[in-house]
Amino acid sequence: MSQQAIPLELLNRMTDAQFVAATGDIFEHAAWVAEATLAARPFATVAALHAAMVAGLHAAPRDRQLALLRGHPELGRKVARAGDLTQASMAEQGALGLDRLGEEEFARFTALNAEYGGRFGFPFIICVRRHTRDSILAQFARRLGNDGEAEFAAAIAEIAFITRLRLVARVEGPGKPKTDGRLSTHVLDTARGRPAGGVAVSLYEIGASARGRVAAAVTNADGRTDAPLLAGGPLPIGTYELQFSLGAYFAGQGAALADPPFLDVVPIRFSIAEPEAHYHVPLLATPWTYSTYRGS
Amino acid sequence: MSQQAIPLELLNRMTDAQFVAATGDIFEHAAWVAEATLAARPFATVAALHAAMVAGLHAAPRDRQLALLRGHPELGRKVARAGDLTQASMAEQGALGLDRLGEEEFARFTALNAEYGGRFGFPFIICVRRHTRDSILAQFARRLGNDGEAEFAAAIAEIAFITRLRLVARVEGPGKPKTDGRLSTHVLDTARGRPAGGVAVSLYEIGASARGRVAAAVTNADGRTDAPLLAGGPLPIGTYELQFSLGAYFAGQGAALADPPFLDVVPIRFSIAEPEAHYHVPLLATPWTYSTYRGS
Amino acid sequence: MSQQAIPLELLNRMTDAQFVAATGDIFEHAAWVAEATLAARPFATVAALHAAMVAGLHAAPRDRQLALLRGHPELGRKVARAGDLTQASMAEQGALGLDRLGEEEFARFTALNAEYGGRFGFPFIICVRRHTRDSILAQFARRLGNDGEAEFAAAIAEIAFITRLRLVARVEGPGKPKTDGRLSTHVLDTARGRPAGGVAVSLYEIGASARGRVAAAVTNADGRTDAPLLAGGPLPIGTYELQFSLGAYFAGQGAALADPPFLDVVPIRFSIAEPEAHYHVPLLATPWTYSTYRGS
Amino acid sequence: MSQQAIPLELLNRMTDAQFVAATGDIFEHAAWVAEATLAARPFATVAALHAAMVAGLHAAPRDRQLALLRGHPELGRKVARAGDLTQASMAEQGALGLDRLGEEEFARFTALNAEYGGRFGFPFIICVRRHTRDSILAQFARRLGNDGEAEFAAAIAEIAFITRLRLVARVEGPGKPKTDGRLSTHVLDTARGRPAGGVAVSLYEIGASARGRVAAAVTNADGRTDAPLLAGGPLPIGTYELQFSLGAYFAGQGAALADPPFLDVVPIRFSIAEPEAHYHVPLLATPWTYSTYRGS
Repeated sequence: MSQQAIPLELLNRMTDAQFVAATGDIFEHAAWVAEATLAARPFATVAALHAAMVAGLHAAPRDRQLALLRGHPELGRKVARAGDLTQASMAEQGALGLDRLGEEEFARFTALNAEYGGRFGFPFIICVRRHTRDSILAQFARRLGNDGEAEFAAAIAEIAFITRLRLVARVEGPGKPKTDGRLSTHVLDTARGRPAGGVAVSLYEIGASARGRVAAAVTNADGRTDAPLLAGGPLPIGTYELQFSLGAYFAGQGAALADPPFLDVVPIRFSIAEPEAHYHVPLLATPWTYSTYRGS
Repeated sequence: MSQQAIPLELLNRMTDAQFVAATGDIFEHAAWVAEATLAARPFATVAALHAAMVAGLHAAPRDRQLALLRGHPELGRKVARAGDLTQASMAEQGALGLDRLGEEEFARFTALNAEYGGRFGFPFIICVRRHTRDSILAQFARRLGNDGEAEFAAAIAEIAFITRLRLVARVEGPGKPKTDGRLSTHVLDTARGRPAGGVAVSLYEIGASARGRVAAAVTNADGRTDAPLLAGGPLPIGTYELQFSLGAYFAGQGAALADPPFLDVVPIRFSIAEPEAHYHVPLLATPWTYSTYRGS
Repeated sequence: MSQQAIPLELLNRMTDAQFVAATGDIFEHAAWVAEATLAARPFATVAALHAAMVAGLHAAPRDRQLALLRGHPELGRKVARAGDLTQASMAEQGALGLDRLGEEEFARFTALNAEYGGRFGFPFIICVRRHTRDSILAQFARRLGNDGEAEFAAAIAEIAFITRLRLVARVEGPGKPKTDGRLSTHVLDTARGRPAGGVAVSLYEIGASARGRVAAAVTNADGRTDAPLLAGGPLPIGTYELQFSLGAYFAGQGAALADPPFLDVVPIRFSIAEPEAHYHVPLLATPWTYSTYRGS
Repeated sequence: MSQQAIPLELLNRMTDAQFVAATGDIFEHAAWVAEATLAARPFATVAALHAAMVAGLHAAPRDRQLALLRGHPELGRKVARAGDLTQASMAEQGALGLDRLGEEEFARFTALNAEYGGRFGFPFIICVRRHTRDSILAQFARRLGNDGEAEFAAAIAEIAFITRLRLVARVEGPGKPKTDGRLSTHVLDTARGRPAGGVAVSLYEIGASARGRVAAAVTNADGRTDAPLLAGGPLPIGTYELQFSLGAYFAGQGAALADPPFLDVVPIRFSIAEPEAHYHVPLLATPWTYSTYRGS
């Protein structure tokens, strides 16, 4: 964010016009949501401000809600012009790489968008920062099976996710709602009963349409990585693979290994389903066995 | 083998000429090895017969040994003519797919063969049925680093492996030397304390130059596969990946799962280093944890 | 059993009188149960014979059933006279040690028996070979909470267990019902990826009122005990502790151990709830970690 | 400690007489050790002060060292008079319960003391706070096998441990040497992939001559105990058993359990060998499996 965060306390003291100027774009082309919260000021927490906005959205007449949904850009639009997307929308879609779709994927998104728009009368809305590309496609397919009422509610729920992230980025203050997840690991050498330091760890996103390394680290003396493998935002829902260079570690310890070693690069494949949660995925290993689990 | 196996007892009773006719081609173009064992008949076991042949090889003068080494075909020769390769050599190299090398790999093998031949004066000999293609390349590179004496011994040792397999295929009788390995698995549902039946399991060979599925099965009510995943011959040295469809199993059990499930397809990557051994690689799992180990 | 087993085929061909003489005492003082099965001969399996007897018992008028229940001895009677107990009852109660109760326990059993008899009008019946002493006390307490109908059914069900064991001991033939359980173990050295041979294993029954070693063995080269730790009959429901001398094993392997070793005698405490089942309780261990599970 | 800790900085600024008055009793009846460090002031850390004292002890003539050893009280002396033991010695021996020995144990200690004194010419010295009673007996037996030189060094080494603890209790300041260990646990419900909260945990010291509960706690929502099970001093070398009430936990979760449950109270028996280390001994469990390891 190039913009400086606004203190919540300042928002509470602003004039109505200043407040709407400062927060009116949190909801896409819908400053009326911010206006609806004016009376509820002051807010003790950022979470309370967001809750008030979401309540205002839920309380609005159906045609206003529909207009808000219709004001969202199509997902994966190849040629995005500044006038069409809000700044925030551009940044969010770029994070996922939806602006770098191949021809085939672009065609698929275009077809899904057309089918979705035809069926529901508004564009497919999803909080892209909470999803991998594969997960978006899975949600697209699943939500196309919804009836109109359920899908309207689903779209509103996604707007709550999107705006929560925007608000947290925009406003500084106490009681921020939880928007960040965390993925951590820990490697234990259970042959020697001590942390395994110096183990190279890579994290891959494993998608049907793409596979890419999203993090890499080396374990420290406590068998952990100095920083979480993923942090600082929602963990995108999707499938991942941790790869631990276990063979190199045990060779470096002078352990008696088979040739080639029974275990060399150990892959741990798992999916993230809760973007705001902490996933601790450790590896307990000897040259001949390992186990993993979702820890805390 | 289209040829019918010869009873050991019959070999023991044959005339010398018959014996040499029946076993002279076990060692490539070197019936003299069979001849050297004539006096030691009768053999109580097939293993004893093979040991006698190998002893005869070790006792032979250096120039005879060298001629034997030189009588072996080059590995991975693209255009193999019947007159150059023995029947057995063709079958063995075919098993690995060395007759189906791509242009680049063929060029690599050709270069390695040329370098090896130039350095040692005989072709690179390896018991291909005990190796994957990757393992052969690794051995090639490693053995090129040997001095002449060590490499001469390494080649003789490989001939012992090759001929052991040929003899076991040719001769029926007691005391066959162990030439078969076995890979088995077992899936336990440790959330419910019982075998996991109906779990789809695939085995892949994971090579730098190739990756292919080499076995597939579904676990039975005891959580095992009805037949070993690999059996009936040496286990080729190399790297493998077992993939267990754990998510589908737990979904079928009605377990409460995340969406997507934390564990879906579980990969277990491991290497085989002992072709004649039993590798038992089980999976103990709940929807949130698993462990594996080399068992027995 | 000093008595020789009678072939099922012979039972099928006997006169009615011979058949009743041979099987009339399977149900305590109630030859009429055997008589009720005469018409159904021949029986293809021992299980079918037992099922016919149990069906005959279920079909009998209530007063006959009640008389049968009342014909059973009181559990834990201190001074048992040959005329009161059938031979089979004596052997079965002796196996558990109910004939060697201390004064306090005897008083407790006497009080429970009196309370039970007063409430239900027949003695407490339980298949003692399927229970430890603690489990009998637990069942006693639990069944005292039953209403009359439920307890009548529970007593009949126990008679089916008791007579199944008696019939299986008396009759030889195909299709014996499953009456035997099995407890086995397996020790794997996961630091070295191989079975742990030479590990001393003891099995204790852990009861509130008693604790005793019921089996001891040393693992063989495959990490298993040559014979199951428990077999040859129902596994008595109750709590057990396996103790593995892991420290001595790893010291013998020359492993680098702490002083004293982190793991020395490893206790695995578990309960058996299914007397006719197979309990496989392995130990996977290094000097610094272990795991166990109910396997198969 | 009723005494108030003295700031290191203050010690550095004291007159020589004040310094010796403040620290002269750290080494039993041997103010000369403190005197030997006067010239080295100021000390940047408490560890440096202790190191200087130990260096002074090592540099002292043999007869002074011997006098120091001889100045120590006999271990386990039943009737200890204030004039014989220093205040610190009394507190330390009391912690272990050596002042509450039974007749037989007292006799054993007396005999060992007599044998030891006769052989080496000074009393058996050991830092009792780093040992359980069993461990002291084991050390007594082991050290009786030392030759005179080795045992002299062993006694000096124990005095370093004893005085390190005394100095850390006496002096406040930066760079305290590590004298505290820590025992922690963590319970994970791997059937549900989350921490197991509400699990009762007890820690027992398991000794040949005594067994007692030394800690009890209930796991919190994160599956940990609010405070370490042992902390605030050296962890006494010895054997312990953690007992986890796993059956009650899973019953409370509504898990489908056997009757009785396969796992109820789970004992984890282990030994502590490094008094100043962190022992993390977690339990990963379902109703049918568990594992533990020394973690970090």
